[in-house]
Amino acid sequence: MLCYQIPHFGLASLTLAEHPTPEPAPGEVCVRLHAASINYRDWLMIEGRYNPKQKLPLIPCSDGAGEVIACGPGVTRLRTGDRVAGCFFPRWISGPPAKEKINTPLGGPLDGMLCQYRSLPEDAWVPIPSHLTYEEAATLPCAGVTAWSAIVEQGNVRPGETVLVQGTGGVSIFALQWAKLGGARVIITSSSDDKLARAKTLGADATINYRTTPDWDQAARALTNGTGVDHVVEVGGAGTIARSLRAVKVGGTISIIGVLGGNATETSLIPILMQNLRVQGVVVGSREMFVRMNNAITQHQIRPMLDRVFPFAQAIPAFQHLAARAHFGKISITIEN
Amino acid sequence: MLCYQIPHFGLASLTLAEHPTPEPAPGEVCVRLHAASINYRDWLMIEGRYNPKQKLPLIPCSDGAGEVIACGPGVTRLRTGDRVAGCFFPRWISGPPAKEKINTPLGGPLDGMLCQYRSLPEDAWVPIPSHLTYEEAATLPCAGVTAWSAIVEQGNVRPGETVLVQGTGGVSIFALQWAKLGGARVIITSSSDDKLARAKTLGADATINYRTTPDWDQAARALTNGTGVDHVVEVGGAGTIARSLRAVKVGGTISIIGVLGGNATETSLIPILMQNLRVQGVVVGSREMFVRMNNAITQHQIRPMLDRVFPFAQAIPAFQHLAARAHFGKISITIEN
Amino acid sequence: MLCYQIPHFGLASLTLAEHPTPEPAPGEVCVRLHAASINYRDWLMIEGRYNPKQKLPLIPCSDGAGEVIACGPGVTRLRTGDRVAGCFFPRWISGPPAKEKINTPLGGPLDGMLCQYRSLPEDAWVPIPSHLTYEEAATLPCAGVTAWSAIVEQGNVRPGETVLVQGTGGVSIFALQWAKLGGARVIITSSSDDKLARAKTLGADATINYRTTPDWDQAARALTNGTGVDHVVEVGGAGTIARSLRAVKVGGTISIIGVLGGNATETSLIPILMQNLRVQGVVVGSREMFVRMNNAITQHQIRPMLDRVFPFAQAIPAFQHLAARAHFGKISITIEN
Amino acid sequence: MLCYQIPHFGLASLTLAEHPTPEPAPGEVCVRLHAASINYRDWLMIEGRYNPKQKLPLIPCSDGAGEVIACGPGVTRLRTGDRVAGCFFPRWISGPPAKEKINTPLGGPLDGMLCQYRSLPEDAWVPIPSHLTYEEAATLPCAGVTAWSAIVEQGNVRPGETVLVQGTGGVSIFALQWAKLGGARVIITSSSDDKLARAKTLGADATINYRTTPDWDQAARALTNGTGVDHVVEVGGAGTIARSLRAVKVGGTISIIGVLGGNATETSLIPILMQNLRVQGVVVGSREMFVRMNNAITQHQIRPMLDRVFPFAQAIPAFQHLAARAHFGKISITIEN
Repeated sequence: MLCYQIPHFGLASLTLAEHPTPEPAPGEVCVRLHAASINYRDWLMIEGRYNPKQKLPLIPCSDGAGEVIACGPGVTRLRTGDRVAGCFFPRWISGPPAKEKINTPLGGPLDGMLCQYRSLPEDAWVPIPSHLTYEEAATLPCAGVTAWSAIVEQGNVRPGETVLVQGTGGVSIFALQWAKLGGARVIITSSSDDKLARAKTLGADATINYRTTPDWDQAARALTNGTGVDHVVEVGGAGTIARSLRAVKVGGTISIIGVLGGNATETSLIPILMQNLRVQGVVVGSREMFVRMNNAITQHQIRPMLDRVFPFAQAIPAFQHLAARAHFGKISITIEN
Repeated sequence: MLCYQIPHFGLASLTLAEHPTPEPAPGEVCVRLHAASINYRDWLMIEGRYNPKQKLPLIPCSDGAGEVIACGPGVTRLRTGDRVAGCFFPRWISGPPAKEKINTPLGGPLDGMLCQYRSLPEDAWVPIPSHLTYEEAATLPCAGVTAWSAIVEQGNVRPGETVLVQGTGGVSIFALQWAKLGGARVIITSSSDDKLARAKTLGADATINYRTTPDWDQAARALTNGTGVDHVVEVGGAGTIARSLRAVKVGGTISIIGVLGGNATETSLIPILMQNLRVQGVVVGSREMFVRMNNAITQHQIRPMLDRVFPFAQAIPAFQHLAARAHFGKISITIEN
Repeated sequence: MLCYQIPHFGLASLTLAEHPTPEPAPGEVCVRLHAASINYRDWLMIEGRYNPKQKLPLIPCSDGAGEVIACGPGVTRLRTGDRVAGCFFPRWISGPPAKEKINTPLGGPLDGMLCQYRSLPEDAWVPIPSHLTYEEAATLPCAGVTAWSAIVEQGNVRPGETVLVQGTGGVSIFALQWAKLGGARVIITSSSDDKLARAKTLGADATINYRTTPDWDQAARALTNGTGVDHVVEVGGAGTIARSLRAVKVGGTISIIGVLGGNATETSLIPILMQNLRVQGVVVGSREMFVRMNNAITQHQIRPMLDRVFPFAQAIPAFQHLAARAHFGKISITIEN
Repeated sequence: MLCYQIPHFGLASLTLAEHPTPEPAPGEVCVRLHAASINYRDWLMIEGRYNPKQKLPLIPCSDGAGEVIACGPGVTRLRTGDRVAGCFFPRWISGPPAKEKINTPLGGPLDGMLCQYRSLPEDAWVPIPSHLTYEEAATLPCAGVTAWSAIVEQGNVRPGETVLVQGTGGVSIFALQWAKLGGARVIITSSSDDKLARAKTLGADATINYRTTPDWDQAARALTNGTGVDHVVEVGGAGTIARSLRAVKVGGTISIIGVLGGNATETSLIPILMQNLRVQGVVVGSREMFVRMNNAITQHQIRPMLDRVFPFAQAIPAFQHLAARAHFGKISITIEN
């Protein structure tokens, strides 16, 4: 089979190679992948910035979807022809996170999904909603589940609450969609009025252009009559956490789902203490969360927001598009066979 | 009546003054105070470092206990002779925190308890366990309730879990006591082997001298077979948060109950994200939490750890003793009449 | 002022009387009522079947809405002209229920809202959404809050879950509305195809006529691929609980919000045990729940489902309409002045 | 190997048979069992009263402990010589219960542990605390985990709360032990003053002889100043639930962990509704709960309460002893090899 791999760090090294098509071991299910989706994490991994000690070569991309072509002995729930997506953490099936559940994600340290076939234990695959294309379903494992955990599972957002979502990348747009599903009011921020207008069509109740309104925390407070929002979905990290701490209400929650703005920052813990805030890290989620999210997607016939779909031959341009940060929602790659 | 007040910031300005003895307004209960207890927050307030805009003069000290001497019209639950302590937040009766519940603590902005009489709404007083002296009961409203919220109400610590408590100050020793009540294993840190030995007599299961073992986070991990502790009770803030983030397990909780080490710090959000951590601010708690804590104190006949009791005339030495940070547990002041 | 009261049990005794218009005591707010709403509980109370020991005469009806006309001394949050509704439990402000919070509901033992003016402590009034008429707002305190607690606060219903709602009375229709707000799928039962059709227009995803499909529990299971529903909102009590226990999934929840079918029943506890079910009683809710519900109502511009509005002179026909159980949603009474 | 089995329902049919010693399949671990423990469920199963459709012959007993003697291919966490106990539900690893997780318990429908060797998937075995004998460890899978779930995982019992435990059978004594670990006050009931005295030595704070005090619900209320207990651990079912509903406080919880008193009863749902009670079924628990319980057992060096240990040859007398209901705590059977 064909697969992309990086023999060395750096996007330029991303090249196609011929590997043997995998056979399913006992308990495993082999899937012919039809699409992968790319995340900022995948790009950092390729560039060697996520984990400089990552063993190479590596097949990148945590997220992929396809159809079952073979089941190993002992497989009971899946059968040939089933449409499935992989789990970001193949060993986090259920319950709270733990070291042994989250230390082997796909796309690094384990090989990922930018290839034609992948064999994984049965539990690492989840059936996908029937109304989704493979390109759409491939967006779910990392970005979809992360946003679902932040809003629903850990965030426990309820009707009538206000959620502030930062930006319009993949996780953020999912967070917008899940928060609207759950009956919340959503304020979204972006540097682009055009993207804000698109977010409105997806249900955003209020928008703030943080370029023209750098004091977006004050604007968010004003939109809540000075109370502050119930929940912030934080993606910027060092660049934005200080304002997030000012935008949230007493007793509110900030979900940390990304740190685009850099690793470290001069952060004060005093607002966390004095406002009784909860700062909750969200590292994707379990297989059972994925299943519950899919139930909601099916019920509401939700479609993930695809910014652009690239053909398999254009994996490098796909990552360049991601790195340019001009996208709105998710980027997928069709895997031809 | 006599009361201490600060006409200007600075401990040197703390002086006795004669005020009219308060009369209970409708719904209020007037209490003859027999003891106050002092917290680091009270000292910062006096020094003008907690809130430089605090209106002066101010009667300091959030925490006091005494006996009811008069009930205003409409009071139904308390009667003359009842032994009570005040609530840190007179308006936070129940439920989650909110701005209007927590913006008027005693001891600043509202006048506090370092005086002979105090009249407050009935709900701002809580009956105290009968086995406690007033000096012991006065330690509860801020430090006791904060630790209770961190360990029990928000922390939800369970039997068999491991809690790391930093230091041996008032809140920390209460945290040790509540964690042991709840069946947890407690690791405590201090720079003094003598204090660590005393913590052992209060039930600490393991101790770490962070002066002789500066990598106390590694020591804590080693004490949990490399897994990390379930819960850190963080009091040091900037000085210690980075190590706390390394001492805690995947999916664990860090309760921020103090920031002794300073306001701001170069903190990375990445461990919060990658380990799915919860960083939970704890700003004291509600009246109902206080009542539930008192139930546990009564049931187990717990005694707060009193480091030292000062007479009313020695309020300034009491604060100097606190500021020197050599205490173990709480410091109270007897209020003679 | 005019008020309805029952000197003796029995709807026939419900008569108008002239009472002095109340003056607000300290801390109280006097409201000119513009509408009341009636509940099954009110009717049982009038008939002497709810509490045969209820002191008479009694002004019935727990639920009313109007405008503030006078504030007693010490009132800080409300002012003349504010539009408000009363709280079913004037003393359950926040936090978990407790005996002293729930033992004094309006409409029995305390006088209720079927009168022109009512003075209650400030905290017993809640501002109402501005888009609602008084007749609509009067439906909220008992039925609206009960359904809100069942679905959102205690039920924690999440997007993609399935809720089975029994019947089309006041609480049931609110439960349908809140479940849809929260992103759930709703199955509703009724003996009337006409009512089921109306429920569909309010968002019900599936309907079951329990007259033509007496095995509605099996039908509900079939609608969930045999898994069972996540949540049942039980109103029938003895008449329906056995089927509810069969309709719900392993680990699911049954909220008991009414017992229309009678008091006692031959119920087996074995399904509760063997399926790890949660059977949760729901006795209305706190003032803070009411406020959070109003936030959701305002955000989504929800309108309560009014079956019919009666003029003040026709209180007896209003109750007869309720007792006939032909209504769909809520019944209100306009209170003219 | 030797194993007990029932070719027909009825204890008299319980006989030894010779079976081939199992070999571990891929992913399985074979354990040489050293002890089994018996539960009321096992006895009902043998008598054909638990599930009359159970396929026969059946090896009874859900609970057993022993040492690993062989690991199949793919096993990663266990190795030869490890001391382990089996999980009541081999497929309930983590997270909430679900049909597919709980439909295959050991001891019926699956073969159980009253045999010399058992091979099960790796995840179905849990390492046991090193201070426990095999006879003690064998008591944990059903009774220990059920009580742990009732008190800790689902019950969330906290320091200072009051738990009423019915009786002194296996689950009840574990419930007493876990409630005391978690800092609760425990009231225990029995018909035997001798058993009550023994319960006191295990930490019970108050005792009620329900034979001499048939109104034990009133006695329990009196022990809580009329408030009612926070939590009832209900084992009697039809025989006791009505009193349990009267013994518990407003907003309290009744955990249904057994139905010794029979299947069905004339139960009123009204107290559940009017007191906002939670009635929570508890069907054992997950593997992760078992692990967390073991952490607590290890930390506190808890020993299960063994009423009596029978030799392997005396399995029938062991069940007769159980059926006579004169035991206090658990009954185990040593499995010789």
